[in-house]
Amino acid sequence: MNKLNVALVGYNFMGKVHSHAMDNVSFFFKSELQPVKKVIVGRTEHLVKQAAENFGWESYETDWRKAIHREDIDAVLICSSTNTHMEIAIEAAAAGKHILCEKPLALTAVEAKKMLDAAEAAGVVHMLGHNYRRVPAICLAKKLIDDGKLGELYHFRGVYLQDWLLDPQFPTSWKLDKNIAGSGPHGDLNAHLIDLARYLVGEVDQVVGMEKTFITKRPKVKVDATLGADFSKVKGDVAEMVEVTVDDTTSFLAKFKNGTMGTFEATRMAGGRKNYEQIEINGTKGSLVFNFEQMNELQYWSKEDDVEVQGFRKILATEDVHPYVHAWWPPGHIIGYQNTFVNQLADFIDAIRQNKAASPNFYDGWLNNQVLDAVSRSTKSLTWEKPDHE
Amino acid sequence: MNKLNVALVGYNFMGKVHSHAMDNVSFFFKSELQPVKKVIVGRTEHLVKQAAENFGWESYETDWRKAIHREDIDAVLICSSTNTHMEIAIEAAAAGKHILCEKPLALTAVEAKKMLDAAEAAGVVHMLGHNYRRVPAICLAKKLIDDGKLGELYHFRGVYLQDWLLDPQFPTSWKLDKNIAGSGPHGDLNAHLIDLARYLVGEVDQVVGMEKTFITKRPKVKVDATLGADFSKVKGDVAEMVEVTVDDTTSFLAKFKNGTMGTFEATRMAGGRKNYEQIEINGTKGSLVFNFEQMNELQYWSKEDDVEVQGFRKILATEDVHPYVHAWWPPGHIIGYQNTFVNQLADFIDAIRQNKAASPNFYDGWLNNQVLDAVSRSTKSLTWEKPDHE
Amino acid sequence: MNKLNVALVGYNFMGKVHSHAMDNVSFFFKSELQPVKKVIVGRTEHLVKQAAENFGWESYETDWRKAIHREDIDAVLICSSTNTHMEIAIEAAAAGKHILCEKPLALTAVEAKKMLDAAEAAGVVHMLGHNYRRVPAICLAKKLIDDGKLGELYHFRGVYLQDWLLDPQFPTSWKLDKNIAGSGPHGDLNAHLIDLARYLVGEVDQVVGMEKTFITKRPKVKVDATLGADFSKVKGDVAEMVEVTVDDTTSFLAKFKNGTMGTFEATRMAGGRKNYEQIEINGTKGSLVFNFEQMNELQYWSKEDDVEVQGFRKILATEDVHPYVHAWWPPGHIIGYQNTFVNQLADFIDAIRQNKAASPNFYDGWLNNQVLDAVSRSTKSLTWEKPDHE
Amino acid sequence: MNKLNVALVGYNFMGKVHSHAMDNVSFFFKSELQPVKKVIVGRTEHLVKQAAENFGWESYETDWRKAIHREDIDAVLICSSTNTHMEIAIEAAAAGKHILCEKPLALTAVEAKKMLDAAEAAGVVHMLGHNYRRVPAICLAKKLIDDGKLGELYHFRGVYLQDWLLDPQFPTSWKLDKNIAGSGPHGDLNAHLIDLARYLVGEVDQVVGMEKTFITKRPKVKVDATLGADFSKVKGDVAEMVEVTVDDTTSFLAKFKNGTMGTFEATRMAGGRKNYEQIEINGTKGSLVFNFEQMNELQYWSKEDDVEVQGFRKILATEDVHPYVHAWWPPGHIIGYQNTFVNQLADFIDAIRQNKAASPNFYDGWLNNQVLDAVSRSTKSLTWEKPDHE
Repeated sequence: MNKLNVALVGYNFMGKVHSHAMDNVSFFFKSELQPVKKVIVGRTEHLVKQAAENFGWESYETDWRKAIHREDIDAVLICSSTNTHMEIAIEAAAAGKHILCEKPLALTAVEAKKMLDAAEAAGVVHMLGHNYRRVPAICLAKKLIDDGKLGELYHFRGVYLQDWLLDPQFPTSWKLDKNIAGSGPHGDLNAHLIDLARYLVGEVDQVVGMEKTFITKRPKVKVDATLGADFSKVKGDVAEMVEVTVDDTTSFLAKFKNGTMGTFEATRMAGGRKNYEQIEINGTKGSLVFNFEQMNELQYWSKEDDVEVQGFRKILATEDVHPYVHAWWPPGHIIGYQNTFVNQLADFIDAIRQNKAASPNFYDGWLNNQVLDAVSRSTKSLTWEKPDHE
Repeated sequence: MNKLNVALVGYNFMGKVHSHAMDNVSFFFKSELQPVKKVIVGRTEHLVKQAAENFGWESYETDWRKAIHREDIDAVLICSSTNTHMEIAIEAAAAGKHILCEKPLALTAVEAKKMLDAAEAAGVVHMLGHNYRRVPAICLAKKLIDDGKLGELYHFRGVYLQDWLLDPQFPTSWKLDKNIAGSGPHGDLNAHLIDLARYLVGEVDQVVGMEKTFITKRPKVKVDATLGADFSKVKGDVAEMVEVTVDDTTSFLAKFKNGTMGTFEATRMAGGRKNYEQIEINGTKGSLVFNFEQMNELQYWSKEDDVEVQGFRKILATEDVHPYVHAWWPPGHIIGYQNTFVNQLADFIDAIRQNKAASPNFYDGWLNNQVLDAVSRSTKSLTWEKPDHE
Repeated sequence: MNKLNVALVGYNFMGKVHSHAMDNVSFFFKSELQPVKKVIVGRTEHLVKQAAENFGWESYETDWRKAIHREDIDAVLICSSTNTHMEIAIEAAAAGKHILCEKPLALTAVEAKKMLDAAEAAGVVHMLGHNYRRVPAICLAKKLIDDGKLGELYHFRGVYLQDWLLDPQFPTSWKLDKNIAGSGPHGDLNAHLIDLARYLVGEVDQVVGMEKTFITKRPKVKVDATLGADFSKVKGDVAEMVEVTVDDTTSFLAKFKNGTMGTFEATRMAGGRKNYEQIEINGTKGSLVFNFEQMNELQYWSKEDDVEVQGFRKILATEDVHPYVHAWWPPGHIIGYQNTFVNQLADFIDAIRQNKAASPNFYDGWLNNQVLDAVSRSTKSLTWEKPDHE
Repeated sequence: MNKLNVALVGYNFMGKVHSHAMDNVSFFFKSELQPVKKVIVGRTEHLVKQAAENFGWESYETDWRKAIHREDIDAVLICSSTNTHMEIAIEAAAAGKHILCEKPLALTAVEAKKMLDAAEAAGVVHMLGHNYRRVPAICLAKKLIDDGKLGELYHFRGVYLQDWLLDPQFPTSWKLDKNIAGSGPHGDLNAHLIDLARYLVGEVDQVVGMEKTFITKRPKVKVDATLGADFSKVKGDVAEMVEVTVDDTTSFLAKFKNGTMGTFEATRMAGGRKNYEQIEINGTKGSLVFNFEQMNELQYWSKEDDVEVQGFRKILATEDVHPYVHAWWPPGHIIGYQNTFVNQLADFIDAIRQNKAASPNFYDGWLNNQVLDAVSRSTKSLTWEKPDHE
């Protein structure tokens, strides 16, 4: 069996879930290629050292360049803050390493294009970390659409609602700093919706949006970071109030190239919604609804059913016939968030083993970033913008 | 157009809903025969007088015999306390009046049989007031079962949960007096489940049950009855604590003659459940779920769907193809509790007009009472009892 | 007891439901003032004659002017096509009649303003038929917001989804003719969302929207109209294909004057959605969700609950403490679509009796029309528009 | 850090999920004691060898005695068929090994008592594998009950519905052989309900039940077992029809010692239900509902809420304040079936480390078996039976 030696850049929430996937992928998905947790990377030595221990990595580095250039490294998982993605990915590609990069791919489409070009030039496998494409219920949705069960598509509506910023005393962090994160829930959550929309519906032609920051100043705390911790658990002493430079919410209207009409909304201020990523798609022959908070379920309505028994079916996508499920548990024994990263990693490994393109990849990341950028532009220009402007 | 002159015995909750049905039936269901609110009956003059005014009856009587024997009366709606049903129904039948009687038909199966015999002997139309058979979603369930969509039936499970007695200070009333009501939620709510089970599944072969009165004494209040009021709104001064002589809950297991296995539970002590009448039926080819609190919906699972898209469909039974719906509103414009009484009255009138048997009728009432009795016996005998014992 | 003699203009779906309300209001809501079904108005004599009979009106007229000017008429219910509202209302006001007019109030805000001015000048009671304000669950939502339970409002999201035009062979009608209806689901369904948003959240500052007609030609049929029938039941021989001149869907983004961010969508092409009017409101202290297809329920999340038990409560708004419920049935005995019209009519009568302003009224209709107009303008101007432009 | 060397007996579904827990427990729950996958045991050499490889065990044995007596083994996980539990557990205890045994503990309460006595005599930690006690939502339910939020308990109702035997051609297996499995869904699924009922409500005083085998003969197939496979995936050539010697369904009524009234039902014949384990508990002050198919949610109704906003809250038990959640993911990022085994193993290890009693343990297993036995007796005696008969 061959080894795939991996470097992981970043050690917070995403670092934890990717480390977990590294631990589990070979158990559920047998492959000729077995990933090895070689090195984890972070800037603060005592923290990354502890992360290496907690998550079981063989070594750690504080300089990502050093880790990437290690000869024993075959692939890089990039989970650091968005502003670092481009530099790391380009250098990793140049070093011939395969890359799985968290979303959004980059701060802007311009950056994303450079990453795509670098990866393509290097001939490495590049993948974008949109784990929700690996939810069995979403894969089933894709299959039903591809099978023509929805007919021609008329509507896409997606909302991604969270509430972790509802408390005005919740401290700021890099996620609320435009220079580091690029945007707020727009790049964080709308990115997911956009990726699913492109996956399930098609390319976006034009958009118009609005954004708002409800709480414009938040306390800055001296973070006593607990490795692998939930971001919402940050505690510490308040030092000062600093400006929030990203949106708290961004919504937009979209016209797809195939004529589908779409609405999108992302927010971190919807009380009671925790990870409420809901999409609904209506076509001439059927409709689908998915919500991550019940991620094992897909609702499906078919116009082809007898009229007297038409209704939204709640499909529990835990049957052997559903994508990825064969690797997991019997019907009704539901899976969770982390399983999607295991499925994703299995596909990344498989792409490397077969030397084929991963999906979604940096091309998708570039297009996703284009839509994000177009929406942001439209909030300033106050009119419709096209994603392929740049 | 012919008139059907009606006498209504009883003027509380059931009196109100039947009066409303009288007002509405001709609007929604055109018929040669048009019901007229001739006379309403109650023992207490000032109350029944006010009821006549509130509900729009032409006259009132304090003596039910007098009302029944009026020559201008064609039909009697019996909504008085259960212990009065037999006497009134037998005399009404003898007087040649058609009868729609509230459930449970009688205090016991013995009484019910006498009522059945009297009505049959007199040749009048007799109907039992199980309005839930007139919910479109239930009618659809019946149709699907009759069409063989469920195959052979394996399971029936029914619960009827309310919580209006949860407060130990809630006052006693005739509904908590065994001599008047016969039993508590058993005769009040299990009667509905039993009727639906017999309608949808078939006859019950044997039962074993348990019952309990959690609150054995309740305050007696001097009721300042508001006509047509919700029973739960009774207010007044507490005079004394009196014994509750009926069950607060009764549950039982049932074996149906066709081999289906059933579970039943009725209670007035399930906090948060208001009129939570839920049934589920599983067969070799499909399953159904209904809950009155969402009475416009029927859930349906079919084994004949493709495996990858099997799931419980939530059918909104508001389409033109669904029973009774053509009389009401467009799809999605849901109906309510009172509509079932309008549907029921339309069928009663139609049975009279066509001189045909109504369904359910006193025969059903007799069989329902048999099951109720058998369960009650089993709570004493501590073993299985057969409904057709008597 | 005084009589309120009513003329009803229109006899289709809305005519039926208003006739039903006329029949029922005095039963449920006792008042000094009792409405009388004096005259129903329609252009086609044999149809309006039959409607008068079916719905129980004392007389009929084919000329609305004649009906309005009858001395025995006190109030007019306007349920005819939108393009006729202005003329009828202005003349009714001039004749000193109180007016309850269906929504949208007018084809444009300009028309609506004239109606408002006329009604105000005449000093008559004027009301707008947004029956959803009379759903107990919506009234409860209003109360919770007014009580401060939601705190400052951040988000409003509303969708109103139907699917009755999904079939491309579904025939055209006046509802698909811009000259008669003004717009498609925009004026029909977004009007409801806008009214609820203004009621619950506040005034809209600016909007940007998009609209689309998916099926641009539909068959024209010779309608054999069944009186009071569901609009979706139209049958007949296809004569020719004619152009659809209204939208099949309209969505828009909104910024409210108080800073709330809103999204709106209306469509008649969302397969499986029948009367799916769903709104969600998020504030600093709580959230609310309502969906008409389960109109007896209100979901409520409170930040003030203990963290460990926070969650959306599903309130069954059928308790005596909930608005209007005292008039109806005991807890859990749900009401339906038609009940909202009874509640509405009771309030209209009460406003007349007390000579006070009704709510919503023509002022609301004017503002609602302004928002509708602004959205329509924005679909052409491709930028944000303000409702109070005119 | 100390090592806990583990032997796992059994390598099918339960063997897989326990192996997965072994792999993950140290990642999520830091402990002084680290479990090691030393040896896996099975009777068929080529299968257990492959299992060792698939699941990553250091070695395998075909003789469980040999494995248990290995000096390097500290603890034994028993996942083999029920009829083997007693012998293995008693010998493991005698050898001084800590034991985590799958449910039901034994074929009968008599067997279970011997296991309990052996484990107690040996002073080893003994735990029963009722993983559902480790669902955060269930732990929250327990906490709310212990905190008095439900008051005095009135009702427990539990159903555990599956449908994997609905197809009469589904082949038989050891799970359908009374000598090996003891019973069908009774011991498999009712065991879970009984354990939860005892955990949340209290001890059972008496029961009466019914059972049925709908399909009495099933094909026997030559199984080409896929290791770790879902039991429902068994394929092969049909050799002959053999008798099913266990129940397809068992239901029973229960009276708890504290006065709570309970209903229980387990079946493998409820079409559309996959792992539908639902419980509802009603008390004087509140109610709770849980369903495994949405295992991250707990529904809670409180009588202490204001009447106008009372309703079942849907709590997403994924907050930091909820049991076990701190180890996993941020709010709304739901967990799955396998996580409960990780939580359970963490507690088992912790009990060993602290040399304290595990919960549930063999004492619970004994009591659970008593209830199972009493129900089975009652299906023959046709009357109420007490669990503590033996």
